[in-house]
Amino acid sequence: MANIQRPRGTRDFGPEEMEKRRYIEEVLRKTAATFGYREIATPTFERAELYTERSGESIRNEMYIFKDKGGRELSLRPELTMPTMRFYAEELRNLSKPIKVFYFGNCFRYERPQSGRFREFWQYGCEIIGGGEHESDADIIACAVSSLENAGLKKFVVRIGHLGVIRGLLWEIGIEGEDQSKCMQFIDKGETEELFNILKAKSPSNLGIDRIRDILDLENSKTVYQSAKKIIAGNRKAVKAIESLEKILTILEALGVENYVVDLGIARGLDYYTGMVFEVDVPTLGAEKQVCGGGAYKLAELFGAEPVNSTGYAIGFDRVILALESQEVEIPQKKLAVYIIPLGEAAKAEVMKMATTLRNNGISCNAALMDRNISKHMKHANTINAEHVIILGDDEISEKKASVKNMGTGEQVKVDFDKLTDHFKNSNSD
Amino acid sequence: MANIQRPRGTRDFGPEEMEKRRYIEEVLRKTAATFGYREIATPTFERAELYTERSGESIRNEMYIFKDKGGRELSLRPELTMPTMRFYAEELRNLSKPIKVFYFGNCFRYERPQSGRFREFWQYGCEIIGGGEHESDADIIACAVSSLENAGLKKFVVRIGHLGVIRGLLWEIGIEGEDQSKCMQFIDKGETEELFNILKAKSPSNLGIDRIRDILDLENSKTVYQSAKKIIAGNRKAVKAIESLEKILTILEALGVENYVVDLGIARGLDYYTGMVFEVDVPTLGAEKQVCGGGAYKLAELFGAEPVNSTGYAIGFDRVILALESQEVEIPQKKLAVYIIPLGEAAKAEVMKMATTLRNNGISCNAALMDRNISKHMKHANTINAEHVIILGDDEISEKKASVKNMGTGEQVKVDFDKLTDHFKNSNSD
Repeated sequence: MANIQRPRGTRDFGPEEMEKRRYIEEVLRKTAATFGYREIATPTFERAELYTERSGESIRNEMYIFKDKGGRELSLRPELTMPTMRFYAEELRNLSKPIKVFYFGNCFRYERPQSGRFREFWQYGCEIIGGGEHESDADIIACAVSSLENAGLKKFVVRIGHLGVIRGLLWEIGIEGEDQSKCMQFIDKGETEELFNILKAKSPSNLGIDRIRDILDLENSKTVYQSAKKIIAGNRKAVKAIESLEKILTILEALGVENYVVDLGIARGLDYYTGMVFEVDVPTLGAEKQVCGGGAYKLAELFGAEPVNSTGYAIGFDRVILALESQEVEIPQKKLAVYIIPLGEAAKAEVMKMATTLRNNGISCNAALMDRNISKHMKHANTINAEHVIILGDDEISEKKASVKNMGTGEQVKVDFDKLTDHFKNSNSD
Repeated sequence: MANIQRPRGTRDFGPEEMEKRRYIEEVLRKTAATFGYREIATPTFERAELYTERSGESIRNEMYIFKDKGGRELSLRPELTMPTMRFYAEELRNLSKPIKVFYFGNCFRYERPQSGRFREFWQYGCEIIGGGEHESDADIIACAVSSLENAGLKKFVVRIGHLGVIRGLLWEIGIEGEDQSKCMQFIDKGETEELFNILKAKSPSNLGIDRIRDILDLENSKTVYQSAKKIIAGNRKAVKAIESLEKILTILEALGVENYVVDLGIARGLDYYTGMVFEVDVPTLGAEKQVCGGGAYKLAELFGAEPVNSTGYAIGFDRVILALESQEVEIPQKKLAVYIIPLGEAAKAEVMKMATTLRNNGISCNAALMDRNISKHMKHANTINAEHVIILGDDEISEKKASVKNMGTGEQVKVDFDKLTDHFKNSNSD
């Protein structure tokens, strides 16, 4: 077995990395809870059709698919919105609306491993089902922004758009259905040449195509939708979309989010988005800079539920961790409060008792688990980042006073056994 | 897609269930940290050989196996000790020893779904690699017991044994290798008839077989190893095992664990256990009553690392949740602190601003996201378990005083806008 290694594109996480990850995870979870979202969880694998029926067979190449004993195809989940809506249709729809939920879970994508992309990765996200359209969209954006701020991210760009603008212009020149989806995907990937080739091939309206080009050429800014209004004048659907976006942005500002730009060229890759869309980039991340994406979508009816407003976002947890590292944000590490070393055989039981007392009082504590000399013990305490060391010998036990060394300052003091808990509680840097 | 359901044997978790699960998860994680264990994580799938090479091909029937594009077999992990040891051999071995780690993750077992057993389930566990044998074993048991106590479990039985006793008696009568493994499995499953059939077939020593029967017939108690000593007298290996167990139990008592019995009939299903073994049962759970199992094992050398003492335990997280329910243990639920309702159009922006202020001060808060009448708003606030409701109309806004209703007591008070945070912080039941 000596040559059995970790599967390609996956990661092991050691203690230091896990502490960071759990800390940020907890920050995100707390933020969602503060916004009134409640956590749900769905299985790690789903019936493969949940993804293939909607997104087509091409998605199969990026999924981990296997069969159960009944011959049904299962897939490791590539994302968490579809399972959430399946869960909604099966059970959650009975809850009082609006339903505000969040999730934190691992997802899987079968692709060539590369920087910032992994075959197993974590997503955190929120969804609102059944709320007012504009209020819900604003709540979702505000929660996403707060999540990234609370995680400690210093620099990021929030781009907010509305699919109705481009879609309205596409409809106007007769681009619908499959063709429209293809255009949206070209826009999403920034493939403008392919976009205009297909537009020219499918539509005779040069004027209409120019309007699309003008919208895509607009420079992102907070007020760009004012200029956009002139370009789209007369296109009822596009005008309605812009007005809707304005309402969302007004609520968003009341929610304290002022640092964003309007980007009417956001198309999102997935078909099910319908209205407001937004993305968050971290410039310090380089090519894989998007850490968050979301928007309004329609999915409930696919699962046989009543049509209902839904909106949500997902944050790429691994990207956020990378982003924090790229911005040199320090993530607090928990330290072990005490490492206790026995001096001699008689002290061993005493060390165990002391460890138990401290642990029962919430002080994290390691008792030495093997015989070795003091200097090796001290080195170990240092390596595992212990804040204090207690050395316990016969003298200390008969005096009922422990020698406590602060590993940070090097200071050494004697503390009565029954005052140890207070001593560490007060010096607790946590 | 209306008929795409959750895969069989898996579960969705709604908000209330997730709150309970995360609460208990946090308690377990905190307990491990208090004992000085640090968290690690490994991928959700591993190379299938990680499990099949050691446990034989029969385990395939219980595993989810699929191929990657390179034709390599991958498997959803059925447990977390093997990945931990793979990680140890690949990286963790460089850390200063003893290495104390814990994990909390999902595992997968492909079997007929039944009460208390799921195809996706969660395991929490701790491992010590490279510590003194007796100290580490005691630390592991103490941490398992504390974990269950801290989770709130009232009634459970801790059974501690040592494989060396039975194995010593088996060696004595010439039962080794495959035969010995088969015997251990029969003992593990309580299949005594099959055990004694194979013993009689393979060994001529009636006296030796009787000794095994006598050991298995011993009634579990705290001091049963005293009687066991008489039965095994003269068997060097078995005597050594009992002496080792005594040392572990002495340390365990110093660690404050006194509520246990010695059970020399514990065999554990897996081959890699070598010394101390223990199990924890919750009688109120019925047939699937075991919530925890563990012991000392040898695995490092399989991965090409130096032989090293290792010991650990795993707790079935889902079983613990079921056990807590079976004992009617109340798990604290977090409540939404405030639900804010606007009266009229003008108040809407004010409601959003107030929500933001409260959230920025750590108060969990929902602003109404849709227009509906007050009584429907109040009903929603009630359903989502809000502790307080604020109704904000023109009067409140001009006075800068909010009407705050405590949904538990029904009490209603007026609170200055700038004293709202304090109001909720003080009445926070959290």
